[in-house]
Amino acid sequence: MKKKMVRFVVLSLVTVMVAAGCSGTLGRGIAPDAAPTKNVIMIIGDGMGPEQVGLLLSYARQAPRTVIKNRKTAFDRLMDDGGVMGLSMTYPSGVLVTDSAASGTQLATGQFAGSEMIGADKDGNPVETILEKTIQTGKSTGLVSDTRLTHATPAAFAAHQPHRSLENEIAVDMLNAGPDVMLSGGLRYWIPKSANDKDSAVRKELEQMTQGSVKIKSKRKDERNLLKEAREKGYDLAFNRSQMEAAQGKVLGLFAYSAMPDGIKVTHSLNSPERTIPTLKEMSAKALELLSKNDKGFFLMIEAGMIDWAAHYNDTGLMLHEMMRLNETVDYVLDWAENRDDTLVIVTADHTTGGFGISYNASDLPQGMTLPGSLFQGREFKPGYNFGNPEVLDKIYSQQLSYGDIFYGKFDSLPKEQQTPAMLAEIVNAYTEFEISEDQAARVLATEENPFFVDGHSYLGTNVVPKMGPTGSFFVYQTDDNRQNLLAREVAADQMVVWNSGTHTATPVLVFAKGAPEAMAPFGDVLHHTQLSRYAIEAITNR
Amino acid sequence: MKKKMVRFVVLSLVTVMVAAGCSGTLGRGIAPDAAPTKNVIMIIGDGMGPEQVGLLLSYARQAPRTVIKNRKTAFDRLMDDGGVMGLSMTYPSGVLVTDSAASGTQLATGQFAGSEMIGADKDGNPVETILEKTIQTGKSTGLVSDTRLTHATPAAFAAHQPHRSLENEIAVDMLNAGPDVMLSGGLRYWIPKSANDKDSAVRKELEQMTQGSVKIKSKRKDERNLLKEAREKGYDLAFNRSQMEAAQGKVLGLFAYSAMPDGIKVTHSLNSPERTIPTLKEMSAKALELLSKNDKGFFLMIEAGMIDWAAHYNDTGLMLHEMMRLNETVDYVLDWAENRDDTLVIVTADHTTGGFGISYNASDLPQGMTLPGSLFQGREFKPGYNFGNPEVLDKIYSQQLSYGDIFYGKFDSLPKEQQTPAMLAEIVNAYTEFEISEDQAARVLATEENPFFVDGHSYLGTNVVPKMGPTGSFFVYQTDDNRQNLLAREVAADQMVVWNSGTHTATPVLVFAKGAPEAMAPFGDVLHHTQLSRYAIEAITNR
Repeated sequence: MKKKMVRFVVLSLVTVMVAAGCSGTLGRGIAPDAAPTKNVIMIIGDGMGPEQVGLLLSYARQAPRTVIKNRKTAFDRLMDDGGVMGLSMTYPSGVLVTDSAASGTQLATGQFAGSEMIGADKDGNPVETILEKTIQTGKSTGLVSDTRLTHATPAAFAAHQPHRSLENEIAVDMLNAGPDVMLSGGLRYWIPKSANDKDSAVRKELEQMTQGSVKIKSKRKDERNLLKEAREKGYDLAFNRSQMEAAQGKVLGLFAYSAMPDGIKVTHSLNSPERTIPTLKEMSAKALELLSKNDKGFFLMIEAGMIDWAAHYNDTGLMLHEMMRLNETVDYVLDWAENRDDTLVIVTADHTTGGFGISYNASDLPQGMTLPGSLFQGREFKPGYNFGNPEVLDKIYSQQLSYGDIFYGKFDSLPKEQQTPAMLAEIVNAYTEFEISEDQAARVLATEENPFFVDGHSYLGTNVVPKMGPTGSFFVYQTDDNRQNLLAREVAADQMVVWNSGTHTATPVLVFAKGAPEAMAPFGDVLHHTQLSRYAIEAITNR
Repeated sequence: MKKKMVRFVVLSLVTVMVAAGCSGTLGRGIAPDAAPTKNVIMIIGDGMGPEQVGLLLSYARQAPRTVIKNRKTAFDRLMDDGGVMGLSMTYPSGVLVTDSAASGTQLATGQFAGSEMIGADKDGNPVETILEKTIQTGKSTGLVSDTRLTHATPAAFAAHQPHRSLENEIAVDMLNAGPDVMLSGGLRYWIPKSANDKDSAVRKELEQMTQGSVKIKSKRKDERNLLKEAREKGYDLAFNRSQMEAAQGKVLGLFAYSAMPDGIKVTHSLNSPERTIPTLKEMSAKALELLSKNDKGFFLMIEAGMIDWAAHYNDTGLMLHEMMRLNETVDYVLDWAENRDDTLVIVTADHTTGGFGISYNASDLPQGMTLPGSLFQGREFKPGYNFGNPEVLDKIYSQQLSYGDIFYGKFDSLPKEQQTPAMLAEIVNAYTEFEISEDQAARVLATEENPFFVDGHSYLGTNVVPKMGPTGSFFVYQTDDNRQNLLAREVAADQMVVWNSGTHTATPVLVFAKGAPEAMAPFGDVLHHTQLSRYAIEAITNR
């Protein structure tokens, strides 16, 4: 209790001085750190509901072989060091559940948006974002994401488009908005169509520039070379770690053709000398290094975007690695911001994904045991259910491949006649700690005519899809992806893990804020994300 | 932002004064409310995870016809009025997921407990609870629950037993512990076995005392009449509202044979002049009236216990009514405690139940529409999924009977030959807004041989059980109860609601605290419930 009180008091002191009229010289004299907020760092765990935060906390505190140092997560630190916590609703205009575009937009603009819109209000008008407002104050800005730069969340901070799928247009918008630092994946939207022609000059130039670090293929329908345009606007370009490290001024870093590597791959390659792709933490560190050169301050948005993807696929092992990626990044940011009352750090999510839970069940009931306590003399201790052995958390962390890689990488690359339930079981059992039988694998591979078929729909347009059962309408990414969700069901009892959806839920997300007391106080409330955004805008623009 | 800041500052002032050495006369002179905490009120929403809080917030903010005044919940008030928020892990000793007994015990004792234990440490030794410690300080104590008094949560505060199922023994313990106020259901554990004999003298006496308000039937195996013993210890007895109102000193109120009425019944009977059973709010009000007579102060635990039960059955409509019951009770307590810095109010949950979520899906996709905004000129607004019409929340609230009453009350009371899928569909469609077809009803009534059969187990001992599919091991209450969970699956797409389990999850629960700054500050942290309990004990015992 003591430590927490002391922090609370120290932080409160500044507030009180300001409020009690001890402003100006006196206030500053007594509390020299009470400068107005110069920097705002907003960290978004995409899909990181309270359930996801819970997985990290369970793993940190209970896994016998946890790799988290001192069993202390960045969330613990945020609060131990005197942060405040709030809760925020994420729904967009007119509906109950948000997608990442609308939520990112609301976080960026402070105004309600329509579903799937980028940087627009509910009527479809463009709205200035916190990033654009920050630029006007003369401060620097940056966007970092481990998905791809033009994906919904980063896009919402620097683009204005009617739909998130318009990534070619989003790339143009982002370049026009001109954040000083942009680091992520998604090269395919930044290079001209003719890059797909193996003999083109631009292809050769790109091959040289990227040093073989990134697959070169364009999704553009025009000949705009946004890399060239970026260079003309003064950006250093980076396609691998060393190029990123060398960047000095404005930087555009695109480290993958589409998405960056998933959390399991990152964990496994972390100490490899061959690794050319920076981690989320490394990109964030570079962003902080560059942005903090501006004496006026900066706004930086960092997205840990694949928590959401793992949750859509109900891939618990992958999701834990994604939470670890968020965790080490927030830890780094907290180190950087330590003792800096001029910096407001906000950690939140854009929504909750998958309806995840570690849950007790009726499989593998505990044996009776004796206990020394006086209440158990002459009586066994024998709980009625399997409440979960903490070792299961280590097994979850031990997963060697994402479910995506198991299906697309391993299983689908076999000749058709070898794609049998027995083979799937063999692969699953080789790369995860939760074995499935051939019968279970057959259920995972079972298909049916798509009950929700919509002709031409990007995800609902497949005729034959995995067989999802009564709640199938919540597994809307009805390509082969749903095999992953079916696999999750088969290992549920052994993992002690349940999921309720392949989409997002409306469950409010947690908000953690740390900075000067007057800057962080408003975040300790029951909010809507539009409010959260307005508070952040007030803080960075000092209005 | 302004309002929140002012509150933050006012509350901080006291803390700073205390911390800055401005204690004693000076501190009190400047901040006259800075008295040590006299009263602690702990409100536990059983099973109320962030998902459940989210349902209430969605309903308050988005339902077109919400009955929540000004769309403001008690959670909004807690924070608007300057409260702090934290997050707390609930796991007991050695396992991942808790039951209510272990969690209640950890909340009551500040020490880790084993699964299903009452008032014991992990080794099975009895541990003094916050209630027992409070009594030693000369303060008053009370326990209020809308389930039954000897159920896990209230029991954990005033009994010490190796297992939660020992409710006869728990009743004896509770009477020995002697809280001044005990208001709930569960008469059956407090009256002698011979009360089951219709001609016995004790039966006649009980009939007179209870005035026909409570069914008289005993579950005891002995002749102890705990009501008589209570009267000898100076308790007033109450079995209905008017008797409760008349009580003046210590009071034992038992208003139901087992559990009190569910939240839907409470809502519907609220304004009925014939209602004899007090609501959770009325019991809490009476408790506050009586306990606050003690100038030294009091500890009061209030449980909204049926949030958990509704969540176990995946009964969304019922759960919303249960959240409303919690909401109006917290509202009352906040009114009572307003401007009282001598009172610490803690609102939390013992665990999360059911893995609930409002989720988007692929059924009933939205039509395209035109929008006035400039980004939508020449383009339709047509989101790719059904993100949920807020009107669904009003429909959920309109549910007329709990799923329990639909099955046990209506369906099972029909002659066997009338218990057909068609009849079930008819009943469901008469009492809820989410219609099911005969085919769907047949799925709800489908059974199988129990895959998790355990001979003699209180819930797993049934041979033929509802057919739950691949994640069936998480639906451990394998009596006919699981039909409710199957019904939930069938209406999921129309309700936009998904559930992942019939048991609890390890997802951390929210903590809201409001009181004097130095008393509430420690709760604004990432906690474990044992810590939360220790902070509450420190506050009430002024140690």
